[in-house]
Parts: sequence; structure tokens; C-alpha cells
Amino acid sequence: MPTISQRGEQMPPSPIRKLVPYAEAAKKRGVNVYHLNIGQPDIETPKQVLDAVRHSDFKILEYSHSAGNESYRRKLVTYYERFNIAINYQQIIVTTGGSEAIIFAFMACLDPGDEIIVPEPFYANYNGFAAEADVKITTITSNIETGFALPAMADFEKAITPHTRAILICNPNNPTGYLYSQEEMEVLRQLCLKYNLFLFSDEAYREFCYTGQHLSAMNLEGLEENVILIDTISKRYSACGGRIGALVTKNQSVLDSVMKFAQARLSPPSFAQIAGEAAVDLPADYFDVIKAEYMSRRDTLVERLNAIPGVYCPNPGGAFYAMARLPIDDTDKFCQWILESFSYEQQTVMMAPATGFYATPGLGKDEVRLAYVLNKEDIRHAMVCLQKALEVYPGRTNK
Amino acid sequence: MPTISQRGEQMPPSPIRKLVPYAEAAKKRGVNVYHLNIGQPDIETPKQVLDAVRHSDFKILEYSHSAGNESYRRKLVTYYERFNIAINYQQIIVTTGGSEAIIFAFMACLDPGDEIIVPEPFYANYNGFAAEADVKITTITSNIETGFALPAMADFEKAITPHTRAILICNPNNPTGYLYSQEEMEVLRQLCLKYNLFLFSDEAYREFCYTGQHLSAMNLEGLEENVILIDTISKRYSACGGRIGALVTKNQSVLDSVMKFAQARLSPPSFAQIAGEAAVDLPADYFDVIKAEYMSRRDTLVERLNAIPGVYCPNPGGAFYAMARLPIDDTDKFCQWILESFSYEQQTVMMAPATGFYATPGLGKDEVRLAYVLNKEDIRHAMVCLQKALEVYPGRTNK
Repeated sequence: MPTISQRGEQMPPSPIRKLVPYAEAAKKRGVNVYHLNIGQPDIETPKQVLDAVRHSDFKILEYSHSAGNESYRRKLVTYYERFNIAINYQQIIVTTGGSEAIIFAFMACLDPGDEIIVPEPFYANYNGFAAEADVKITTITSNIETGFALPAMADFEKAITPHTRAILICNPNNPTGYLYSQEEMEVLRQLCLKYNLFLFSDEAYREFCYTGQHLSAMNLEGLEENVILIDTISKRYSACGGRIGALVTKNQSVLDSVMKFAQARLSPPSFAQIAGEAAVDLPADYFDVIKAEYMSRRDTLVERLNAIPGVYCPNPGGAFYAMARLPIDDTDKFCQWILESFSYEQQTVMMAPATGFYATPGLGKDEVRLAYVLNKEDIRHAMVCLQKALEVYPGRTNK
Repeated sequence: MPTISQRGEQMPPSPIRKLVPYAEAAKKRGVNVYHLNIGQPDIETPKQVLDAVRHSDFKILEYSHSAGNESYRRKLVTYYERFNIAINYQQIIVTTGGSEAIIFAFMACLDPGDEIIVPEPFYANYNGFAAEADVKITTITSNIETGFALPAMADFEKAITPHTRAILICNPNNPTGYLYSQEEMEVLRQLCLKYNLFLFSDEAYREFCYTGQHLSAMNLEGLEENVILIDTISKRYSACGGRIGALVTKNQSVLDSVMKFAQARLSPPSFAQIAGEAAVDLPADYFDVIKAEYMSRRDTLVERLNAIPGVYCPNPGGAFYAMARLPIDDTDKFCQWILESFSYEQQTVMMAPATGFYATPGLGKDEVRLAYVLNKEDIRHAMVCLQKALEVYPGRTNK
């Protein structure tokens, strides 16, 4: 019997999904599980976005252009104009989710063995994409004490080696919710110029900024050839299942190279491109309503968390995640225990242990990520569960 | 300015699409171009398949399960039962087109530097996927004289090295249309057992067999742990834009590994999974009608080709491609010339030069691939153009 590859073995499993069997078992016992563990919003996909697909009128579900429908790419130009991002449609390659945009960026810009610097904690699937592209993620650590601010320039410089080719950020950040300031973006700009690095900027949560203003990497002066924007409609329009993202850059060599990878896989999904195109025409106040909802959820979550004895949660500036420090010894064990051995009024809560978001062993052992993708009442119930669980958890520490 | 990666440079461009600018220029001159160059069927996607998406009734376009919706996977089990392929739904991982299934198979089964044997000519995008996975394609040559029959067992054995881990076939074949016989499949079975190789079997055109019967690699005895089936709804239901495929195997280690790659990219497209699920319920005679249409197109195309002096086209047993030998010196030049410098009654034809389907330099220089994805009248017109073009082409040889 032939054996699988070493990379197939070494490919990291999803740290977020490993608790799924425990959640399923809890549900089978009749326990209601509040899912704060994944970034699947409960917000309805805008009706007109779904309707655009439902009312589509074509006879053949054809391949689209490998870079995506020209009509959609031209529409996206107007979307980016709203953020003062001046590009033309040929600088946009529509991808199968943000995931594929990341893979394309890695493949086109990095060779096996090359290094990317990523501030940790970071979106765990970057590890998977790095494994596929055979590149190395080097981390520098951001801390809960500073609310996960960008590490200092000196920390980056210490991590740079002759193999370093890029910096990868997610802004606003998943998992921390941190929104990088103008000053922090300036640090990244200087670093990339000084060391001739690509800047991969994952801006999946661009619209969801509550405290402070988002500065796109695309607007950093002098970085036109360095910046690869990673984008997706998944979170923006609560359209995760569409699998439509985009890679945007002004670097023509990168575009030419990415197009070859895009052509090999023929085209991005056709149906969801229709959805994405319709979404650009949503009324201007669409995000106001959604943002207000997320912001009040954030406020509820953060307030409740900080009210629990021993818990600390910095106030995240964007996205829909919060990282919290719990007064316990090991959140991997705790997150399993709370599903497996605990319930309060037949309810419990599913969270993502933070260790999966850190590369440095031992970091994040007392932290969890919570996604505020539930309504406020559910968030309140979930926080009651968490508080009750922490009161009785055997692994509680004295913090 | 940071430079792109070596793999980004070395990634092969799509050989099929490089003539596109010449076709566009011809159209701008008012010339009607018959597209025999790509595998985009003109057959309408079944209405009930599109309607399933149009009538879908959900509020949130959510991530599906990373392996695809369970309802769809269970439905696919019944689809495969029709071909006596006995699997359970957990042995199916729904992918973003057949393309992703190939990438997943390469990633999970092969390490950088590993070798796959592929009979040439072969589907050109395999080169791209091999470049992404950093594996080496070794070819053995099939010939137009034998209608592109499987090369002899001895040819395979000569190509096997200590790095050989897999054989990749496409059956029925793109680009040759060749349908492997039971005896040829038995050769592959023996090879894989003897040398402990994976057999990647791309069966995208399973339904389109005209001369002879299709034997799925999944039904080869004793190869349960070796066979990875690559599948797609693209050609089957004329649903190329859906980007829904599947990786199917009974090898649990491969399934476990592929799931990690599948989880990293979150999920396959949701809309087209609905389409794929509805397609399994098409009436039993659906393929009879489509097959009859393709078969009569094949007959028209092959007859017309062989009626042109100096042209030879073996009769393909399946898929919707034919390879033809032309009495010219260089089909790359000819396929460009016929778009750029020729028209007959304001019409011309676009074909795929065969060199892009061969890995061995120099092979296929007098061959083209023609996809019979146009109606018979268009095929007839296209063949008139081709004949007239060959009569005046300066690079004509004496064959």
C-alpha cells in the first residue's frame, strides 16, 4: 500500500475544528452549544446579493475568465475607489476565497525555504498555506498586555534573515481584532522598503473597524511594487460559502505570474461572482447597520468578559474577534472540558484555544479567541456559562 | 522592488490560451472564429440544475463542511453506484473543480522531487499543478498511429525510478479522446501493485464514451488503497463555471491528509454544490441525448478531417476531443497564422496546437487538438475553413 507524503503528514490540522466532536457529543446530550469558536457570521447575507444569483439568467454555467468576470472586476474598481485605493481592473485577480489569494501570493512571490514574518498570534490557516507552498513562517510576538499592537521595528529586524522575502499581516486582525494604526503601518512601510520585502495584507475585515480608522496597505506610499492585497467577500457580506476573494496588486510581474496559477485552475466560481458583483451596489448605509451591530456585540462581550473575576480582554478595534486571558492553566484542556464535562442550565460554550494561533510553543496557553458572531442575548448567555465554568474548573489558577 | 519567485517564473503558461489575443484581433476585423480550441461545451446546463440554485432558499451563504455538504456527498454515493463504484460518503471530498482534486492528490501523496508517470500527450494543466506541488512529471509517449493507446507495460517500467510514486491517467482522455480498454486498465493495475504506486485517475469525461465501455480505476481489484479518483461536474453537466469536483478514494490515510488541505481552504463553493446535488437526480436518459449529440459531432468532425488531403485523425472513443495530424511543419505557427493571416468567407478556426500537450520537445509539431463543442453545422464550416487554409498555407509539407 503506497504511503502518503511527508508534507501530507506534516500538514497542520485545523486547530479550530479539533473540538468539533466534543461539541457534537454535547449536542447529542441535549446541551445547547454557543458557537463563539468560528468566524461564520450569523448576519444574513443581503437579500439582493442572493437574489442576483437567484434571478440570474444564463443557459450555460461557463468557465469565467481565469481572472474573474471583467464586469465584476470593473465593479470592484469602484468598490476600492471608496477607500481611495486607485487601481484598474487588470490589477485585480478574482480568486476562490481569500484562501486562494494567499496561496497564489505565496506561490508567485516565494520559493521553497523562503521566510515570511507574521506577527503572532495569527490566523491558523496561514500555517497550512505555508506548508503547501513549502515556505517558513517566522513569528514575532504581539502581547495581550498591549492589546496585540504591532511588535516594534527592532523585533522585526531581529527576525529578518537572508531568506526573508515578505511580511504578512491581517488588518484588522484575526484572531486578535487589533486594528493597526497609521504609525504601525508606517513601520511596515519602512521595513518593506529597507529590506525589499513583499507586504501581504489580508484585509478581509476592512469594513469592520470600530475604534480608529483602517489604512489599507495599498495606500502606503512607495510600496506600490511590494504590496499584495488579499481580499474576500466572505465576512464583508456574510457570504463565506461563495468562495470569492481577490488578489490585488500594482506589481505587474506578480500579476503575470499569478495569472499562470489562475489559468491552471481555470476560473473562480461563477455563481458567487454574480453575488459579489451585486454586493458592490448595496446601499451606502449597509455597513453602518452591520458595523453598529458588531460594535454593540463587541461592547457586550468585552464588558462581560472583563467582569468575570480573573479574566482580561483588551478592547479590539476591528474584525469580530476578541482574545481573552482566562485564569486557568491550559485553554486547550479547558475548551474541551467545557464541552465534555460542563453545562449550565443545559448550555455551554465553544471557544477556540489560542495556542493554535501562536507558533511559539507555550504561548497562548491561558488565552482563547471568541468570535462575536452571535446576537447579544446569546453572547450574554454564553458569558454566564463561561463564568460558571471558570468557578468550578479544576485547572483554575490564582490569577 | 521585490522580485517574483523562481517557481512563479517557471510556472508554465497555459498553452491553450496563448492564441487568445490573435482570436480577439480576428474578431475585431469582423472575422467569425470557430472555437475548437477549448473544452467549454456549448451544451446547455440542464435547466433543473440551474433552477435548483435559482430556487434555493437560505438566508446565509455559509461555509459548507470542508468535505462538502453531507447531503451532496450522500447523493454522490448513489451516482457512483450506477457505475458499480461502491463507496460511502466519507470517502468523497468535494473539491473546487477537478483542478483542486488534482492538487490535493499531489499534495497528500507526493513530496517535492517525487515523480509521476503520465502518458503524453496529456492535459496541459497537469504541468501547472506539478509545478505548484514541486513534483516531476515523467512521460511515456502514446502515438497517433495507434490512436493514442496506452504505451506498453515495458515503457512504463523503463520510466520507473526510485522516485516514482504515482501514475496519472485521464480516461477517457483529454486531449486524445482515447478510451482505455479493460486490458490496458489491467496493465495499470499490475504496475501499481508491482511498484506500489498511486493511480490518479481523472475521469472527468466518464459519461462520454462512444466506442467501448468505460472501466473506472475505482473498480480495479486489489487497488483499493492505490486509486485516487479525480472527478468533476464540469463536463458531465456542462457546468464548468460551478467549480465543483471531487476526490474519491478508499485509502483512509489519504482521506485524512486531504481533509487537512481541505480544511485550510475552508470549503468548496456552496451555490454549485446545490447544482451538483440536483444534477444527480437528472432523468436516466439525460446522458443518452447528450452522448448521441457528441457522438454525431465526433463522427462529423473525424469524417471531415480525414477527407482533407494529408490530414489524419484517429477515431476517438470518448470525451469530446480529437487529435489530428496536419500536413504542415509547425502547428503552433499554423494555429497563429490561421487566426492572424487567413480567413475564408470571413470565417476562421481556432485550434489548440498539440505541442502544449507533450512534454517531449519536438513531439506533436504536426498535430492539433480539436474540441467538438460546437454544433455540427459549425463543425462543417470550420472544416471547410481548415481545408482552405491548408491549401494555401506556406508551411505545408508533402505528407
